[in-house]
Amino acid sequence: MRKICVVLTARASYSRVKTVLTAIHAHPRLCLQIVVTGSALVGRFGNIIPHLEAENLPVSAIIPNLLDPESDTASAKTTGLAVIELATFFGNHHPDVVVTVADRFETIATAIAAVNMNIPLAHIQGGEVTGNIDDRIRNSISQLADLHFTATENARARLIQMGLSPQKVYHTGCPSIDLVYQDKRLDFNPYEAYGGVGSRPDLNIPYLIVLQHPVTTETAHSKWQIDHTLHALAAMNMPCIWFWPNADPGTAGTAQGIRAFREQHPELPFHFFKNMESAHFILLLRKCACFVGNSSVGIRECSALGVPAVNIGSRQNGRERGPNVTDCLPDTEAIISAVRRQLAHGPFAPVTLYGKGNAGEQIATQLATIPFILKKHLLTTS
Amino acid sequence: MRKICVVLTARASYSRVKTVLTAIHAHPRLCLQIVVTGSALVGRFGNIIPHLEAENLPVSAIIPNLLDPESDTASAKTTGLAVIELATFFGNHHPDVVVTVADRFETIATAIAAVNMNIPLAHIQGGEVTGNIDDRIRNSISQLADLHFTATENARARLIQMGLSPQKVYHTGCPSIDLVYQDKRLDFNPYEAYGGVGSRPDLNIPYLIVLQHPVTTETAHSKWQIDHTLHALAAMNMPCIWFWPNADPGTAGTAQGIRAFREQHPELPFHFFKNMESAHFILLLRKCACFVGNSSVGIRECSALGVPAVNIGSRQNGRERGPNVTDCLPDTEAIISAVRRQLAHGPFAPVTLYGKGNAGEQIATQLATIPFILKKHLLTTS
Amino acid sequence: MRKICVVLTARASYSRVKTVLTAIHAHPRLCLQIVVTGSALVGRFGNIIPHLEAENLPVSAIIPNLLDPESDTASAKTTGLAVIELATFFGNHHPDVVVTVADRFETIATAIAAVNMNIPLAHIQGGEVTGNIDDRIRNSISQLADLHFTATENARARLIQMGLSPQKVYHTGCPSIDLVYQDKRLDFNPYEAYGGVGSRPDLNIPYLIVLQHPVTTETAHSKWQIDHTLHALAAMNMPCIWFWPNADPGTAGTAQGIRAFREQHPELPFHFFKNMESAHFILLLRKCACFVGNSSVGIRECSALGVPAVNIGSRQNGRERGPNVTDCLPDTEAIISAVRRQLAHGPFAPVTLYGKGNAGEQIATQLATIPFILKKHLLTTS
Amino acid sequence: MRKICVVLTARASYSRVKTVLTAIHAHPRLCLQIVVTGSALVGRFGNIIPHLEAENLPVSAIIPNLLDPESDTASAKTTGLAVIELATFFGNHHPDVVVTVADRFETIATAIAAVNMNIPLAHIQGGEVTGNIDDRIRNSISQLADLHFTATENARARLIQMGLSPQKVYHTGCPSIDLVYQDKRLDFNPYEAYGGVGSRPDLNIPYLIVLQHPVTTETAHSKWQIDHTLHALAAMNMPCIWFWPNADPGTAGTAQGIRAFREQHPELPFHFFKNMESAHFILLLRKCACFVGNSSVGIRECSALGVPAVNIGSRQNGRERGPNVTDCLPDTEAIISAVRRQLAHGPFAPVTLYGKGNAGEQIATQLATIPFILKKHLLTTS
Repeated sequence: MRKICVVLTARASYSRVKTVLTAIHAHPRLCLQIVVTGSALVGRFGNIIPHLEAENLPVSAIIPNLLDPESDTASAKTTGLAVIELATFFGNHHPDVVVTVADRFETIATAIAAVNMNIPLAHIQGGEVTGNIDDRIRNSISQLADLHFTATENARARLIQMGLSPQKVYHTGCPSIDLVYQDKRLDFNPYEAYGGVGSRPDLNIPYLIVLQHPVTTETAHSKWQIDHTLHALAAMNMPCIWFWPNADPGTAGTAQGIRAFREQHPELPFHFFKNMESAHFILLLRKCACFVGNSSVGIRECSALGVPAVNIGSRQNGRERGPNVTDCLPDTEAIISAVRRQLAHGPFAPVTLYGKGNAGEQIATQLATIPFILKKHLLTTS
Repeated sequence: MRKICVVLTARASYSRVKTVLTAIHAHPRLCLQIVVTGSALVGRFGNIIPHLEAENLPVSAIIPNLLDPESDTASAKTTGLAVIELATFFGNHHPDVVVTVADRFETIATAIAAVNMNIPLAHIQGGEVTGNIDDRIRNSISQLADLHFTATENARARLIQMGLSPQKVYHTGCPSIDLVYQDKRLDFNPYEAYGGVGSRPDLNIPYLIVLQHPVTTETAHSKWQIDHTLHALAAMNMPCIWFWPNADPGTAGTAQGIRAFREQHPELPFHFFKNMESAHFILLLRKCACFVGNSSVGIRECSALGVPAVNIGSRQNGRERGPNVTDCLPDTEAIISAVRRQLAHGPFAPVTLYGKGNAGEQIATQLATIPFILKKHLLTTS
Repeated sequence: MRKICVVLTARASYSRVKTVLTAIHAHPRLCLQIVVTGSALVGRFGNIIPHLEAENLPVSAIIPNLLDPESDTASAKTTGLAVIELATFFGNHHPDVVVTVADRFETIATAIAAVNMNIPLAHIQGGEVTGNIDDRIRNSISQLADLHFTATENARARLIQMGLSPQKVYHTGCPSIDLVYQDKRLDFNPYEAYGGVGSRPDLNIPYLIVLQHPVTTETAHSKWQIDHTLHALAAMNMPCIWFWPNADPGTAGTAQGIRAFREQHPELPFHFFKNMESAHFILLLRKCACFVGNSSVGIRECSALGVPAVNIGSRQNGRERGPNVTDCLPDTEAIISAVRRQLAHGPFAPVTLYGKGNAGEQIATQLATIPFILKKHLLTTS
Repeated sequence: MRKICVVLTARASYSRVKTVLTAIHAHPRLCLQIVVTGSALVGRFGNIIPHLEAENLPVSAIIPNLLDPESDTASAKTTGLAVIELATFFGNHHPDVVVTVADRFETIATAIAAVNMNIPLAHIQGGEVTGNIDDRIRNSISQLADLHFTATENARARLIQMGLSPQKVYHTGCPSIDLVYQDKRLDFNPYEAYGGVGSRPDLNIPYLIVLQHPVTTETAHSKWQIDHTLHALAAMNMPCIWFWPNADPGTAGTAQGIRAFREQHPELPFHFFKNMESAHFILLLRKCACFVGNSSVGIRECSALGVPAVNIGSRQNGRERGPNVTDCLPDTEAIISAVRRQLAHGPFAPVTLYGKGNAGEQIATQLATIPFILKKHLLTTS
């Protein structure tokens, strides 16, 4: 049995690799170790422990490490603590491969701990481009990793271009897209299931889904950036389902902007959720008239669903996108105009740019079947 | 005044950037902050504080963070502690640029702390290839850095190939080579100046200089690898000046091998130094008949000096080299044969592959004169 | 010059030692080093940096270390980080004496760092009794300290009874009481000066001041405990000036209780401040009809001012008190009844139980004039 | 099943509580969790993992945290790391009681982590007096603990005098003494079993056992202090079995003194062991002519065995002792004279001052049978 340790640091990362976790857990030759840390343990950013339990996925350890975000040292210290404590976990549990996901600032901690301990590191979602600090973190992790599972063919090509060995870079598709293909036809009432705050607009009329994170290189701007989105959607005055941003530098500004606006405009048809089980989120997304924000959801999931998306600002610069995405500046008028255009267009044809629904299975299979003793193989030829 | 913070984590890194430190300190528009951490604070690995004081270079802070090396978590935890405490330093001292050097495992801590705090990061000696884990660390740091100073033209080309923006990658030469050109014609007796242990062979007859580090991906092999070198040079029975290895995973094995051999063979003409001021080291190197080991010294400094070098094992795989280097396996017979070949050849013609002696000056000038406000410039276009 | 390092971890601690800081700073033979850490750096708990700047007190370093409070590991990890980073500060700045204050969970970090580095430790406010976990922390710090400055004679006697050497235990009075005697007759409008949220009741009619912290051994109860106070004071329907609680385990419950109640009862004459400059706070306190809560303010400052106080629950159990204090359970009816009784009584005669107004001066004098070389003296006879 | 977590930080602590571990592990109502950290994981200070495995005692986690001892921040940082990582362990494994042992600097980390997480803390060997910094650490831990198991009646009385509640302080005897009563009549050759370095004197003629630690408040003196012992015993020229000191501030000096002396005097009948299984150590001790050093072994174990002991210097000042102990200064002549006096006297009558051999059993029984729900009981009445 190969022991595969997946470190989850945020709600978003969990959603991205959920089908990988399920596939590893189900695989007869793999033993799954899940470590949960960072904002993934904190209620207001979306504690994923109940979700893991609901899926019967085993949690090997929790490592609370999130520093109070007010200090500009918070993300560095959170990362440093994670390196220290993940090393202890690895030293006690001896994973054969450590898996890290995407590009959040604290995911590099997983990479550093694994590399310093000579444990093979697999990276999911390397090689993408978003045009901000995430690129640097993502590419930095790719350089540390031994094994790469990319979401697109272009991403694979970019990693090879960066000097990584082609036989270690697998194009599997993005596991977050797997969920789009697992349509469970659930019937659920999001307000009853998840509570949240704000109005409870009727979701049988056209509604928007909004998810806007602070941009990590523009943290001082997070408040006015979210303000433009808030004002634009207030002007539209149509039902909006908002999701709370990730715990990032700048989140305080985004959160403060949302809270203040909400208190001033309780009459608007806006509802705010902290978190939602992925399958439910996909259902809501599938039915929505347009996605608005700067989350990759607008580009990834929406491309497979054919949902129109308005992508605001620089956060997704350079990310490959299908025809469903229209970009705009973080400006009230620009956002209004872009949303109107997308609503006028209506649904797009789905594309398989980010995968065909079997990324989780493919990744588990690769982890189980790489022919040589994995550690030797990965390290001696790296 | 731009505040430039250089973080030094090891004796070797200090030697490499000594002329950069001096040039920054002397520059009228730069304010130098030196932070010393890691093995650079520990006597048995070469405490650099006295050297900095001797050069009148200001130490802004020391951050002791080296974990006892016996645990396989030591290097990860040392890195994690460095991230945490460097963040505090940066938060208190507000450097405009942070400079990190080369590729040691704990230098990535500097990069992570700076990037997480949105402080522009400059990296010296990126883009090189050595064929081991150092490559991964070095490339990972390059991906995080905003500004790059490379030792060779090839290194610059490699960084650009990896996707980094050409206008941020400067070929300056390697500052460690600057020292080779600063020949001070010192007259010194190394035994009196530095003590050390072992025989004190006459250095007016041909002698070897030996510096062999553990290979970080082959830590379990460090003892037998050094044993082969020890046996080979014992068989040669000519004067050997040994230098103690870096604090790395695997150092315990190397150190134990050296200690045990030394106790068993007190009669051999071997002398062991922990550390030496760079100018003195260059003097000794310039006069030596051949360099032996796996340090980059054999490839860098020796190429500029024309000193023959025997490079053992995989640690420098892929590093650009001049005609003065011959490679061999970590095998007693192979080492003997390679050393004999080099001794028979004698001195080579010097080459400027790694620089012309002004790298420190060039780096300081760039740090001072990048036209736009440095932070904005670096971050907004990254 | 003796270097005296005072570590401040919370707004409350700063208020307690403000006159000590001023006296040390003014003393010709003392050099003051202030380190600010913990909740004292966080806006929502009362960032003290602007207050220190306003007083021209020098901040030698800030050490952000507060973990997100949702995890039950947060206070331990905050403490552990403080130990690590204070050690670095002490190692760089070489204080002759380190001063720690009172009994908050993270103050023990200061003690541990100092003791482990053989730096003499002075403790302010040892020997008191409050009947909860604070007692354990406070006594534990007293056992580690070399020098003790107590608020009352009884506290001094208790430390000696615990085995500490009488010649190292000084009864100086409580420095927080010094402020009560420094009446600056300021004329200020608290709403304009400090903002805050809620109604702005007229403070020329009788008003209450409320400050209730979570009880650290009863963290699961913090919400219902504050709820009783909220309901009791809502029933009284008189002007109430509330202050925000410390960052402690359980604060989330207290804060949530206050927030929810405030949103439901915007009509009540309640105003909420996060923080207030001590002199202003004393002014408000001096004029108030009754203090309500479980802060030591009701027992210490109010005793010197003769202000009636209702002390709720177990947090101050065992603390020496003057005639101005009445105790009650955390129960709506009990609180209403106790407040009514105190209002009916009106002001009490002031008592000097907690000091005469010169504690800061006395402490600075002792720190400067202990006859032997301080470190030797403290350590060799301990 | 109550989960009892015992944190072991040093070889010496393990030896002290070995019978407690065995008794907890054997108890049908207790579940034993052992966490190993600090110097107890490091070969040169006596890695206890093989010993635990040999006894079939379960290791729940290892937490490597020892900083390189050269920095004066090492013990503080080791302690801080332990607080952080123990919190994570407690948060994952939910012990009902945490047990900490004695007085080493890093044992306070266990106490702080447990107290901060509201987990009842039991302390073994509180209330003793040794006259140095250990007293402060030990008393500080006692103030934090909820439950106390003392080695002597006097120690119990001292804790009660310090203000602790009598019903929480149990006199059980010292578990390290249990081993003295478990005479296994082993026949073993220590040189074959444990290797070590130096001469191998015949142990059928009278021999000395030596164990001298650095004194933590006198770390700068550790080298000359050990030098006096080395010279004294060299002058005696009788077989000496030396044991390596604990990892403490000052160990470097002690170790350096021993190493240098050993290299200069290879002819002396001295043998040096790093570590030894407790039962073997007791056998050697039982047969020795005199114990020399500053370890508590001379006072505790030797009193139960009637072995003469020469106690050097201040480290055990104030510790209760039987008639078998003679004290002397760390001075060559004084040591020689004291050893000669003890050799002339020969064996003493054993005394039960430190226990009757059932301390481990008693402690396990108390942990299992404290009547109320342990956590509530301990915390609500504390």
